[in-house]
Amino acid sequence: MNAPESPTQAQALQRADRAARQAEVVRALQAHLPAHALLWHAEDTVPYECDGLTAYRQRPLVVALPENEAQVAAALKACHALGVPVVARGAGTGLSGGAMPHELGVTLSLAKFNKILEVDPVSRTATVQCGVRNLAISEAAAPYNLYYAPDPSSQIACTIGGNVAENSGGVHCLKYGLTLHNVMRVRGFTAEGEPVEFGSNALDCAGLDLLALVIGSEGMLAVTTEVTVRLVPKPQLARCIMASFDDVRKAGDAVAAVVAAGIIPAGLEMMDKPMTAAVEDFVHAGYDLNAEAILLCESDGTPEEVEEEIGRMSAVLRGCGATAIAVSESEEERLRFWSGRKNAFPASGRISPDYMCLDSTIPRKRLADILLAIQQMEKKYGLRCCNVFHAGDGNLHPLVLFDANDPDELHRCELFGADILETSVAMGGTVSGEHGVGVEKLNSMCVQFTAEENAQMFGIKAAFDPAGGLNPGKVIPTLQRCAEYGKQVVRGGVLPHSDLPRF
Amino acid sequence: MNAPESPTQAQALQRADRAARQAEVVRALQAHLPAHALLWHAEDTVPYECDGLTAYRQRPLVVALPENEAQVAAALKACHALGVPVVARGAGTGLSGGAMPHELGVTLSLAKFNKILEVDPVSRTATVQCGVRNLAISEAAAPYNLYYAPDPSSQIACTIGGNVAENSGGVHCLKYGLTLHNVMRVRGFTAEGEPVEFGSNALDCAGLDLLALVIGSEGMLAVTTEVTVRLVPKPQLARCIMASFDDVRKAGDAVAAVVAAGIIPAGLEMMDKPMTAAVEDFVHAGYDLNAEAILLCESDGTPEEVEEEIGRMSAVLRGCGATAIAVSESEEERLRFWSGRKNAFPASGRISPDYMCLDSTIPRKRLADILLAIQQMEKKYGLRCCNVFHAGDGNLHPLVLFDANDPDELHRCELFGADILETSVAMGGTVSGEHGVGVEKLNSMCVQFTAEENAQMFGIKAAFDPAGGLNPGKVIPTLQRCAEYGKQVVRGGVLPHSDLPRF
Repeated sequence: MNAPESPTQAQALQRADRAARQAEVVRALQAHLPAHALLWHAEDTVPYECDGLTAYRQRPLVVALPENEAQVAAALKACHALGVPVVARGAGTGLSGGAMPHELGVTLSLAKFNKILEVDPVSRTATVQCGVRNLAISEAAAPYNLYYAPDPSSQIACTIGGNVAENSGGVHCLKYGLTLHNVMRVRGFTAEGEPVEFGSNALDCAGLDLLALVIGSEGMLAVTTEVTVRLVPKPQLARCIMASFDDVRKAGDAVAAVVAAGIIPAGLEMMDKPMTAAVEDFVHAGYDLNAEAILLCESDGTPEEVEEEIGRMSAVLRGCGATAIAVSESEEERLRFWSGRKNAFPASGRISPDYMCLDSTIPRKRLADILLAIQQMEKKYGLRCCNVFHAGDGNLHPLVLFDANDPDELHRCELFGADILETSVAMGGTVSGEHGVGVEKLNSMCVQFTAEENAQMFGIKAAFDPAGGLNPGKVIPTLQRCAEYGKQVVRGGVLPHSDLPRF
Repeated sequence: MNAPESPTQAQALQRADRAARQAEVVRALQAHLPAHALLWHAEDTVPYECDGLTAYRQRPLVVALPENEAQVAAALKACHALGVPVVARGAGTGLSGGAMPHELGVTLSLAKFNKILEVDPVSRTATVQCGVRNLAISEAAAPYNLYYAPDPSSQIACTIGGNVAENSGGVHCLKYGLTLHNVMRVRGFTAEGEPVEFGSNALDCAGLDLLALVIGSEGMLAVTTEVTVRLVPKPQLARCIMASFDDVRKAGDAVAAVVAAGIIPAGLEMMDKPMTAAVEDFVHAGYDLNAEAILLCESDGTPEEVEEEIGRMSAVLRGCGATAIAVSESEEERLRFWSGRKNAFPASGRISPDYMCLDSTIPRKRLADILLAIQQMEKKYGLRCCNVFHAGDGNLHPLVLFDANDPDELHRCELFGADILETSVAMGGTVSGEHGVGVEKLNSMCVQFTAEENAQMFGIKAAFDPAGGLNPGKVIPTLQRCAEYGKQVVRGGVLPHSDLPRF
């Protein structure tokens, strides 16, 4: 056989290879799944080509939509036997590309796992299939006056399986914890299609805490099919303070002061001036457009608790130099205060052709420092940045505005983003808050972790998935990738000699 | 060389081998540690031969007491090079034998790592060396009106490094979480002596959650030297309800009812009648000796919060059939209510030559069921059992009373204990609550986990410690051990063909 003579010819051959592989995988899956549960024509697989990180797109070889656990197990076994990568997918609302398909892989959509199996008001737990929407759990628990606390912005659409994969957060996580703190048990399947359970309906795990490890593992260790979550009592009342500041540093210091005063607000969020302008124009919530920063501080509990806490928080905010303070007097007003915060992303979409949403975390007391550093970066990279974030958690969501059609802007935006993440690490924080690493932050992992630490993560990956079939190429950077990126943390020693495993 | 001719001769040879190995290890460590930091004579190493699980004893080959991180790293490197097992040790208060020495290993005592490095009231964190006592953290934070919440019974003696190793709990964990929920960052060294850090001073970990994995890993993955913990505000007030019940089932149901009513007490503990009799005789707290079960229910917060919660809890307890309810009217009285609970273990030591303390967890709503099952087991095994436990967490601490000098009683006690653990798993619980697995519960791990799941734990172990030098033979049972024990959970399939790695 002759070598291909032109790029076009090479591409045609590659297409033929891919088509042959596709036919082979479809045949193998057809033995276990009904015809309507398999998609492979281009027009059918396009809707799966990205998740919420729309900058990265890739059509999968095949999309499988199993309807029960037996089909999940069979699909995984078939893929394992053929050496086909598997990417599990919930609602596809993730923001770091964790569910981005593999070119030669099967996207395993768990959309049909949408049953609520049990709500137990005595144990205050709910057991649901992985494809149940986050908000649907709270709706099912509402008759018992309970709800599921973690509330990502996408909670109307995102699924609990995806929340488990990404260890999702939300505005209430300061008080009620991340997904990790609200999930008791995960049932799922290994890459080889074997059933596994992590955690239990009781307090603690014996042995190594595999449950904590699987939560946030971005589909790299197992495929989740069923989740038991903790439910918490609905507070009788919630009220929200909206406070204006004429200086970003004062607002940042106020956040630290609220928490240092021994208060754990139900939510503590910040927006800077550019963000406030963008959302006010969109939702008309009555935000103070002259403020350099706005804080939203929520209290929930019994009416007595809320009154006492709102009083203490207001005093701290005033002491930190708030120029105006409003307290919601009705549920309608409270929701209006939050409407801008909740619509920050679509509002940004209206003022710029594209935006990149970052997700780093810093110690709370460095809030003002990082905001001032980002202002300097705006000048350095010649791009605007709006800031909205879970201030109480120190979890930033800078939105860098750019035009993806201008290659130079795209390049500067990438540098801007990397600078924010690296500055966060330098301030004692991390490159990820609640959106996961996915494909988006692979390089930044080199800035956060040593080769030794990345090797431990690869070792864990190998313990669960020795063949590396689950969501390959995500989350953990190879030593080679870190070398190419020109960054690798070294913690008090030299790089280990050993090569890292590769997936 | 001839084969040894008698057992005595064989033992003498073995002793000579051990002495030679000891000399070799001492020489290697002397290069890095000062003379006073190494112990190897029998009379010096005897104090290290067990932890709080006194039924298992073994003198280590050598005890090393490093004074700084450089010495820890050097000791680990030296042991790794010689293939000597290393068992890290905090205060030795653990109850599952996690710090039991290895016959041919080095016990690495971290007693000298006792410095509080920083208390930061703004971030509400403390950074301390691993050998700092649990209570000393709260004492250092007291000037800022903060404290460290997890409070094992041994908190006056146990160290934060040991708490991290065992994911320790305590009476306040129902409201404030386990060690896992209160530690932000762990610094330590791998088996090869390389520095590692897990977590950060910020909210979340990027990538796989190695911090959650290391917490509760019982010294199998890394040696902890430094810990950053979260501090919480000291409540303004705490009050305690002591409620009597004439029926164990009513008391168990009352626990479930309190939590189902949307209350999260600061502590919710139960003692049964035999336990109450034992402790009353010891502490004279004024407990109701006619009650079949006593509940202690604590509320903390502002005076308004406490009053409201005490009112609601009292109503629920009365509704569940409490025959008497007392509420502490002073801090002195509150501490008296707790004195019996806190002294349950020494009180048991007064009424029996020996006792075995178990530590399993069940779903809260099965409390009455397990208590009644344990009453049946008392008849079956002909031994008495006192029950004291973290009822709100469903975390049992049955104390089986026996005489270790009577081999038949010891045997029946072991069967009794295994029965409790297996019944806990059958009720949807786990074999460990807060004391770890250590050597004590290795067999029970076969009842809880499938071979597949144990293999994942071995795989994780290999990712951190490929040579298996850190605390070998603990926590994870081998497939062979489970086969010999005659138990191995199989979750919807057959045993995997592959052999498990062995350490």
